[in-house]
Amino acid sequence: MEKTRAIVATAPGENHTPGSNWELEEISVPTTLKDGEILVEVSATGICHTDLLITSYPKEAPGMAYPRVAGHEGSGHIKALGPNLTKTHLKVGDPVLLSFDSCTKCDYCAENRAAYCETFMAMNLFGTPEVFSSGDGNTKIAGKYFGQSSFANLTVCTEASVLSAEGIAKNQEELNLFAPLGCGLQTGAGAVLNVARPEKDDIVMVLGLGGVGLSALMAAAVLGCKKIIAVDRVNSRLELAKTLGATHTFDTTGVEDLTKALKEVAGGRGPTCVIETTGAPPVIEAGYGCVANEGSFCLVGATQDPNYALHIGTNAHLIRGVRLLGCVEGNSVPDEFIPQLVAYYRKGQFPIDKISKFYKAEEFKTALHDMHTGATVKPIITW
Amino acid sequence: MEKTRAIVATAPGENHTPGSNWELEEISVPTTLKDGEILVEVSATGICHTDLLITSYPKEAPGMAYPRVAGHEGSGHIKALGPNLTKTHLKVGDPVLLSFDSCTKCDYCAENRAAYCETFMAMNLFGTPEVFSSGDGNTKIAGKYFGQSSFANLTVCTEASVLSAEGIAKNQEELNLFAPLGCGLQTGAGAVLNVARPEKDDIVMVLGLGGVGLSALMAAAVLGCKKIIAVDRVNSRLELAKTLGATHTFDTTGVEDLTKALKEVAGGRGPTCVIETTGAPPVIEAGYGCVANEGSFCLVGATQDPNYALHIGTNAHLIRGVRLLGCVEGNSVPDEFIPQLVAYYRKGQFPIDKISKFYKAEEFKTALHDMHTGATVKPIITW
Repeated sequence: MEKTRAIVATAPGENHTPGSNWELEEISVPTTLKDGEILVEVSATGICHTDLLITSYPKEAPGMAYPRVAGHEGSGHIKALGPNLTKTHLKVGDPVLLSFDSCTKCDYCAENRAAYCETFMAMNLFGTPEVFSSGDGNTKIAGKYFGQSSFANLTVCTEASVLSAEGIAKNQEELNLFAPLGCGLQTGAGAVLNVARPEKDDIVMVLGLGGVGLSALMAAAVLGCKKIIAVDRVNSRLELAKTLGATHTFDTTGVEDLTKALKEVAGGRGPTCVIETTGAPPVIEAGYGCVANEGSFCLVGATQDPNYALHIGTNAHLIRGVRLLGCVEGNSVPDEFIPQLVAYYRKGQFPIDKISKFYKAEEFKTALHDMHTGATVKPIITW
Repeated sequence: MEKTRAIVATAPGENHTPGSNWELEEISVPTTLKDGEILVEVSATGICHTDLLITSYPKEAPGMAYPRVAGHEGSGHIKALGPNLTKTHLKVGDPVLLSFDSCTKCDYCAENRAAYCETFMAMNLFGTPEVFSSGDGNTKIAGKYFGQSSFANLTVCTEASVLSAEGIAKNQEELNLFAPLGCGLQTGAGAVLNVARPEKDDIVMVLGLGGVGLSALMAAAVLGCKKIIAVDRVNSRLELAKTLGATHTFDTTGVEDLTKALKEVAGGRGPTCVIETTGAPPVIEAGYGCVANEGSFCLVGATQDPNYALHIGTNAHLIRGVRLLGCVEGNSVPDEFIPQLVAYYRKGQFPIDKISKFYKAEEFKTALHDMHTGATVKPIITW
């Protein structure tokens, strides 16, 4: 066991504000590793809405265990290697980026499609109970969320989620900056580059300008799409989008008929490729409704209500020839896709520094506040 | 005016059997043509379920007019050309295939995507009231259904629906056989070749083995897909499917958990590409549910209830990475796609003769009977 600092979430009470149940504490991390585990000294972790969502569910919800450590956009260095690793190229001291976990054994994993691993949801969102323990040793704390629980300065990872950053990050600053590539940024960029795949003539519309949405927008700019419409209700985000390649912006504040308005801003027939990152049912419905005939609508943002359903009139769907897509992690194979995104970054085409802001771990409440107000798109905690 | 024979549908009564309101009658066809009209002497017309569906709606339904002449898979020869045609290459006497109508003016038409013409539904399904008149001249009869109303030996077409068959059909027999290419066959084949586009490694499942479904199946065989699963409840159709390239067949008769059964027949994870041609809600739901992660589900068959909706859990949809597709006319550009299908036919890869049977016009009730029992997949009326 070794002591470390971590942001620990307790079971949320009723009517709690997301993140209000997070506290920076000293906890104990096991240093005797099991098969396939890697001990990582985390240097930076992006904060994502999924961290807030997953620590908002009551402890009675399926798969939930409290207290727990969230954090799934980590980077750092390997401190120790557990036994029987299959990634034999990894060495103590290597810089690493942390991404998502997968079983490595099911047919999807065997086909290098780990984002569709048969146990993806359980492994990543639930994690593993009883990984860490409280500073006084009396309470077990859940970890291995996304195989990493990187809201801890020192953490136990599953090797599937650990990628070497050797040759990817040139220095510590880049290693910190690239932390969110392992989830939010590859999700948005992958939705465009791997899933919806718009062409130059497409009218791309991005709904929601958080880290995922702005990554989608930057990816559409990489592809040179002729019209890229950024949609949000926060003016500063719309302004930021303009600097990242948006050719048009649309503020949804106070709009009554959103479907009609979105069609109009796209030129009457509607956008030909919509990337939905808000997870907000009214936006999902307007977004689906506004797509031009033969256009694509890609679901990326999860809804808070897990039972929400979009009602698709099947005759209308086929008459419109619309493609309703969806993806996990932007269909990324992180080992291949993250270097590709870094290459775009180096060419100035994927300027993730413009959407990121660093906060010291002890300032995480400020980071959450700035995320809520919209002042910061992608807060990155440094340890 | 000229007299001709036509199958005329009267407004359906309550609880009528589809097609029981069809009668072969003598009617009058105008021979003074308007701008953009072409008078065609029809030699053959395929019967499709859409003909039955569209003559099943009560006369109060939007866009319906009775009596009317259906028929939208016609072939024949040009008898007269109206004024101000844009297809200036067409001559009197030319063999022609009839396909669907489009406005030729909207943005979709301008982009050569006429299947998504902004007025597609109204132009094709509703047609035009008062084109023909009854033999005694006392009653006007609706026509130009799909721009052709080819359940008439002599009919007035809109030029958008008329394609030259010069160089496509070698003789009269082929001209008759190719009649259904203009709708049902291009729809099924196009859903595979133009829309879902499976690859060799895909597990293709075709739900419903009518003319559309079997055309989809033949197209999957053209692509060399490794597993092609034909699904129906009529045994003779399943047997026929085996001769057309199905590697597996599945009879849905008496199956309780269809989703599970379809997953299993595809090898556990489910098919990776499903073409849905039944329009039957329980089959649509099972078909959507059985698709493997990252697989495609393509809606081709319209439901009888125009308000039917498939409820898509958006979180589950994105977690599965499924693509929900749909198409009209298989996204065909008939001028380009029909010659391609005929080329496959000549190579023995699209054996439409195996799914077609000819009936004289006066035998149309037998044709309908054989279609209902499943004995004939694609009846073609000859005039």
